[in-house]
Parts: sequence; C-alpha cells; structure tokens
Amino acid sequence: MPTLYLIRHGLAADRDRDENDADRPLTPSGLQKTGQVALRLVACGLTCDRLLTSPLIRAQQTAQILVDAGFAADMQVLPALAPAGSLPDWLAWLRSASGLTAIALVGHEPDLSTWAETLLWGAPRGNLLLKKAGIIGLTLPEQDDPVGHSSLFWLTPPRLFIS
Amino acid sequence: MPTLYLIRHGLAADRDRDENDADRPLTPSGLQKTGQVALRLVACGLTCDRLLTSPLIRAQQTAQILVDAGFAADMQVLPALAPAGSLPDWLAWLRSASGLTAIALVGHEPDLSTWAETLLWGAPRGNLLLKKAGIIGLTLPEQDDPVGHSSLFWLTPPRLFIS
Repeated sequence: MPTLYLIRHGLAADRDRDENDADRPLTPSGLQKTGQVALRLVACGLTCDRLLTSPLIRAQQTAQILVDAGFAADMQVLPALAPAGSLPDWLAWLRSASGLTAIALVGHEPDLSTWAETLLWGAPRGNLLLKKAGIIGLTLPEQDDPVGHSSLFWLTPPRLFIS
Repeated sequence: MPTLYLIRHGLAADRDRDENDADRPLTPSGLQKTGQVALRLVACGLTCDRLLTSPLIRAQQTAQILVDAGFAADMQVLPALAPAGSLPDWLAWLRSASGLTAIALVGHEPDLSTWAETLLWGAPRGNLLLKKAGIIGLTLPEQDDPVGHSSLFWLTPPRLFIS
C-alpha cells in the first residue's frame, strides 16, 4: 500500500511590509532544523519516489533540503499544494500516477492536517497538530478511494524526531 | 492543557497452550526496545506526573521500565486498562484527578487507538496504527469534555523514535 508523507515547511522569516508572502525564505534556524529532519528521515531508512512541493519559496527550500539529504531524487512543483490548496486537484494527480510506493508532499497549514483528517475520517475536524518541519505519515489503500480509507502511522513534531 | 500519553506494551512472548494471557511477559527483544523508548522519552525532556497501567504482566513490565528510566516516579494499576477496557471508567478516573499536567497510560490494542480516536473525533474508525511500544500523544482540553475535543500532537512507532 502506498505511503504518503505530508511535510510542513520549516520556520520562515516574518513577512516584511513590502514582501510577498510567497517569497519568504526559511530562517537560519529553519534551515538547520529542516536539515536535521531530512537527515533523520534518511537515517531511518525512509525515502520517497515522488516529492511534490508547494510553489512558495519556503516550501521549495524545504523540498530542496530533502533532496540534498537523499530523501528524494528530485522535486516537482504542484500548484495544488500552495496555501488554501486543492485536495481534489491533488487526488486527481494521485489517480494519474501509478506504481508509486512512497509519495511526499511539502506544503502548508492548515491544509496538510486538514487533508490528512479528510483522508483518515472523511472530513476535517482541526484536531491534528502539525508543527513546522513536522511530518504526518499515512498509509493509503491499494484500491479504495483514499478519502476516509487511509491510516495514520506517524505524526511527529521535529523536537520528538531529531532531539 | 493536560497531556495524555497512550503507550502500548512492548513485544510479549507467544501464548503457551497452558499459560494465562495475562501472565505473558515481554520477550528479551521487547524488554530492550521498550527500554530504549523509555530512555528516549526522558532524553526528550518528557515525564508524566501519573502513570497508570493495565494489570497484565506485559503492561506492568512496560510501566516498570518507564519508571526505572525516570519517566514517572511510580505506577498505579487501573483495571479499566485491561484488554477490552472501559473508556468511561477511565474518564471517571480522570474527572476525579485534578492538577495533573501529564498523564500516561500503558495498555493494549485496539483499546488505546480506539480511545484516542474517540477523544479526537468522538467515535472510533480504526484508522490509527499503534505498534507495540508505540506512543500516542494527545492534548486534552482544559475545561471541555475530552471526548471529541482533544488534539493529536504525536503518534510514533518505536522505529521512528529510537532508531
């Protein structure tokens, strides 16, 4: 059954008055902690065969760190992963993909935890807490619609993974 | 808000034909892995001020390992945590307790993941996967009924915590 990792981007700089939200980069601390998460993922023997990212800079930087650590061979930008993204659009992408055993998405809150709850229980309730550089691990069903038929095997804030 | 850790007992011996299920001890591998989990919990700065355990031997051994590691000062056996245990009985215990900031329960599956889903979403769906010596971390509401009003901040199998 395919594994899905939902990874929230690392800590990003505050928004300057004149800066576009999409351009905010990771802070030095965000770069460091995200790097530690990426190395631990690989040390645990985890990789993915498709890494999709939100187009926003802080997400693309997070995805690049995951690539550099060896968690994925490369990354692909998917507009559906931008803030207030579209779960149906991502599900359409998923249906068009085949033969994947592990997929990772880098994106934003509250989208990622909302999507996870929808995949698990069919509807969001706002009761999953996903920290920056945190990870949700789901097992998707082989055949069924993943909405309401997925399982949660992992949810971790970075402090309980890398410390 | 109080934190609740639901901890599944470690790997136990297979049941002999003549042996009572309640008396099955942890295996050497179960003892070792549970010990590693306990040490990591303490290394992450986590402790609890009340540790409750199922009366079964494999659960009491797991709880004792947590005490020996310094995760809790001592443990208390609660019959409601035995297999096919009673969430209402545990909730009655919770209402009678006060001033606790972190509570840990050592018990069995599918009870622990069923209880977690009930606390999170009001009803179980069977979509949380809790491995032996795995941990679920919930945040309980300060005032509201915890059923349907708790949040999940952590779910980990041992391999993604101690490795």
